[in-house]
Amino acid sequence: MSPLDLLAQTLGPAGCVRDDAALAPYAVDWRGVYRGTPAAVLKPADTAQVSAALRACAELGLAVVPAGGRTSLCGAAVPLSQGPASVVLSLERMNRFRSVDPLDNSLVAEAGCTIEAVQNAAAEAGRLFPLHFGAQGSAMVGGALSTNTGGITTIRYGNARDLVLGVEVVLPDGRVLDDLRRVRKDNSGYALKHLFIGAEGTLGVITAASLRLYPQLVKRETALAAVRSPHEALRLFARCQESGAELVAFELIQRNCIEITLQHGTNVREPMPLSTEWYVLIEAASTHAAIPVREALEAALMAGIEAGEAEDVVICESEAQRRNLWDIRETFPEASRLEAPGLPTDTCVPVSAVPVFLERTQALIASLWPEARMVALGHMGDGNIHLSMKAPAGTSHAELKARAPDFEERVSELAVELGGSFSAEHGIGQSKRPSMALLKSPVALDLMRTIKAALDPDGRMNPGKVLPPV
Amino acid sequence: MSPLDLLAQTLGPAGCVRDDAALAPYAVDWRGVYRGTPAAVLKPADTAQVSAALRACAELGLAVVPAGGRTSLCGAAVPLSQGPASVVLSLERMNRFRSVDPLDNSLVAEAGCTIEAVQNAAAEAGRLFPLHFGAQGSAMVGGALSTNTGGITTIRYGNARDLVLGVEVVLPDGRVLDDLRRVRKDNSGYALKHLFIGAEGTLGVITAASLRLYPQLVKRETALAAVRSPHEALRLFARCQESGAELVAFELIQRNCIEITLQHGTNVREPMPLSTEWYVLIEAASTHAAIPVREALEAALMAGIEAGEAEDVVICESEAQRRNLWDIRETFPEASRLEAPGLPTDTCVPVSAVPVFLERTQALIASLWPEARMVALGHMGDGNIHLSMKAPAGTSHAELKARAPDFEERVSELAVELGGSFSAEHGIGQSKRPSMALLKSPVALDLMRTIKAALDPDGRMNPGKVLPPV
Repeated sequence: MSPLDLLAQTLGPAGCVRDDAALAPYAVDWRGVYRGTPAAVLKPADTAQVSAALRACAELGLAVVPAGGRTSLCGAAVPLSQGPASVVLSLERMNRFRSVDPLDNSLVAEAGCTIEAVQNAAAEAGRLFPLHFGAQGSAMVGGALSTNTGGITTIRYGNARDLVLGVEVVLPDGRVLDDLRRVRKDNSGYALKHLFIGAEGTLGVITAASLRLYPQLVKRETALAAVRSPHEALRLFARCQESGAELVAFELIQRNCIEITLQHGTNVREPMPLSTEWYVLIEAASTHAAIPVREALEAALMAGIEAGEAEDVVICESEAQRRNLWDIRETFPEASRLEAPGLPTDTCVPVSAVPVFLERTQALIASLWPEARMVALGHMGDGNIHLSMKAPAGTSHAELKARAPDFEERVSELAVELGGSFSAEHGIGQSKRPSMALLKSPVALDLMRTIKAALDPDGRMNPGKVLPPV
Repeated sequence: MSPLDLLAQTLGPAGCVRDDAALAPYAVDWRGVYRGTPAAVLKPADTAQVSAALRACAELGLAVVPAGGRTSLCGAAVPLSQGPASVVLSLERMNRFRSVDPLDNSLVAEAGCTIEAVQNAAAEAGRLFPLHFGAQGSAMVGGALSTNTGGITTIRYGNARDLVLGVEVVLPDGRVLDDLRRVRKDNSGYALKHLFIGAEGTLGVITAASLRLYPQLVKRETALAAVRSPHEALRLFARCQESGAELVAFELIQRNCIEITLQHGTNVREPMPLSTEWYVLIEAASTHAAIPVREALEAALMAGIEAGEAEDVVICESEAQRRNLWDIRETFPEASRLEAPGLPTDTCVPVSAVPVFLERTQALIASLWPEARMVALGHMGDGNIHLSMKAPAGTSHAELKARAPDFEERVSELAVELGGSFSAEHGIGQSKRPSMALLKSPVALDLMRTIKAALDPDGRMNPGKVLPPV
């Protein structure tokens, strides 16, 4: 019997997919940049089957690529194009909720639950699961935790990591670490969960997580402000923070992003006359009707106009108006793809350094290709601006790459120089390994390699991801 | 030259203390339970000296006990009473603030800054550093992070871990890991900082940390409510959470704790006629004057009275009244020591399980020694009740220990059975190693040992702490 026959025997026909057509979707990443065909896709139905699968893979010496919704923007959830045979271990069939406990503000979800399903389960229990990002309908708990996903609401609720009370992990040799605690305080030894969160499946496979819930938001106020510069946006951010209106989003948007969305998006309307170069999309909310959110936000924005920070302001009067603002923000990635080729980034700098970071990047782009332009939008409140270098219309991705072969690394360098990080919320996967090699300190890299070698001595877990080649 | 002469040469006379009188304070733990005399106390002045000291200790094969304010309640910061020679590495001279940055809501403090000094530095910059606990005037950043300290405000701001943006760590071989980032989002590889936070110095020495600041609280309302039972306290907790008044503390206090404090404390007044067996100390706050905190809290408490959850309520009208409530809470540990011998605990259960946990513990105490009693107070909002088994007045600690030799382990067991943790916020140190051996899963223990062996292969960092003997 071949190794794959053995796996098929272990997991049953539904648990081991081997025909080419069924493998195809697992052989390419979300952005279509990385390709690698697995020898099989394993689809275990429960933790015991994950354990059996990993034990079998250990015996057979097979590399394992854990996968969930496979929405990684860095090529983390697809096999390498070269190298020894690997199998994809898809958690998609593990999509049960083991418990939902509103009084303790927690729920336990299996790795294959989508983030949207978690949001819905929380809402049904009268609670909020605050993680919120574009791919939430496809992205799954295991992957979101393994990449420590961020998103729109991190300014208030933190990244995925901050929403995890406990995890269940199957180790490379098949042993199960059951650390599915439902309490917020636990100092019983090393914080093992934090090792697996953000490790992109290179140390083990997260099979379930105990997640933290919050009170639901009963009031939400959304506004768009036109500002002259990122510096003015920063001043307005500080003002809004001090207003008493609890900010749940503060997104910086460059004018050209709105224009691109208006041109390529459907059902998106111009939110206000575009008179300035920069905009901020602000959302404030509260968990109780007694909190004067609108009054506080209005007062802050009016004061911002008086102080010259904002030139114009719209505070939404209807859900339709609010939806339009968010549609502009959320359909931008797709509209941007239609507009022209681009080189995206995911950096983070201290909030106070966002203006100088944007200036430097703009200068870098101008020096590389004067006809190219910067398009920038992202989470100002976290210092996490997703800017891209956008090629002139009508040019190709290959031309862009030729003009700016190391654009991402150079932007990463700018961010790190300013005390920031070259990977804010998307992880490393395959695409950021060069930045890891260039910008991570040798001591940090060595520690990571030590941990990897200790937990996965054969190097079979998601090889070629996160850690750069030695 | 002896090894100690070498160390003295490396660190200078101020950096290497060897005379018996000066060593004495470092040879006993905060509670006076654990004793162990170091061969020397090293007091490096900066990170380079910590690095040199650890390199020298590695060459000399000396065990190292990192220490800060040495307020551990578990014997973590004192050498073992037996075993090979060790030195205490005290970070007390490293007490500088490297930066304070209100716009980015962060500051960088060296390990020897006290928590109170951090609070003050934040306040001077118009910000809040929310960590708050009894020993904050002595406890230092390095120790607070190494034990992942909790305290009064964790219900709103989390444990120490949640307040850390980045760390600087000197590894057992003297290499320096500089991960002092000032951003909230960083997904560049494994989350190394989380490995050292809570590791009690067994993997390396935290020498500085980038800490997260919050907006200052401008309004604070404090109340005491008399409730019939922990179950009613739980219902009141849920009600207050939904009131719109942001809770920063929700402390459950058993009647006998108030009585003990009134008897042994100074300047503490009876806050209300003690008509019921249980009380909750509630504090709500806001960062802006526009938030109707008092109104929201009042409404919740009045509704709680109507619903029969609370029998009586006092909402403070003055800072003096507020101070008195907090004095009762905060002087209890000292008053309790004066009252009679006790066996303290530090467990955590899901909030919804607090009532049954208290019932079971009360039954356990009654079965062990009917004349003993439970005294319980702690952080209800986190499920972290610090209950003690209190001996009858006039009896000795030895008698108590004889009656209930494994009380702490049995309470730990009760907590774990309910889905909780046997160490909520004090860490493991020496005192909780038996619970680690009994209650931590073999897989978790094995992973921890694997990590320890990988990072500290000679086992010289704070030996005999955290991990139980094999």
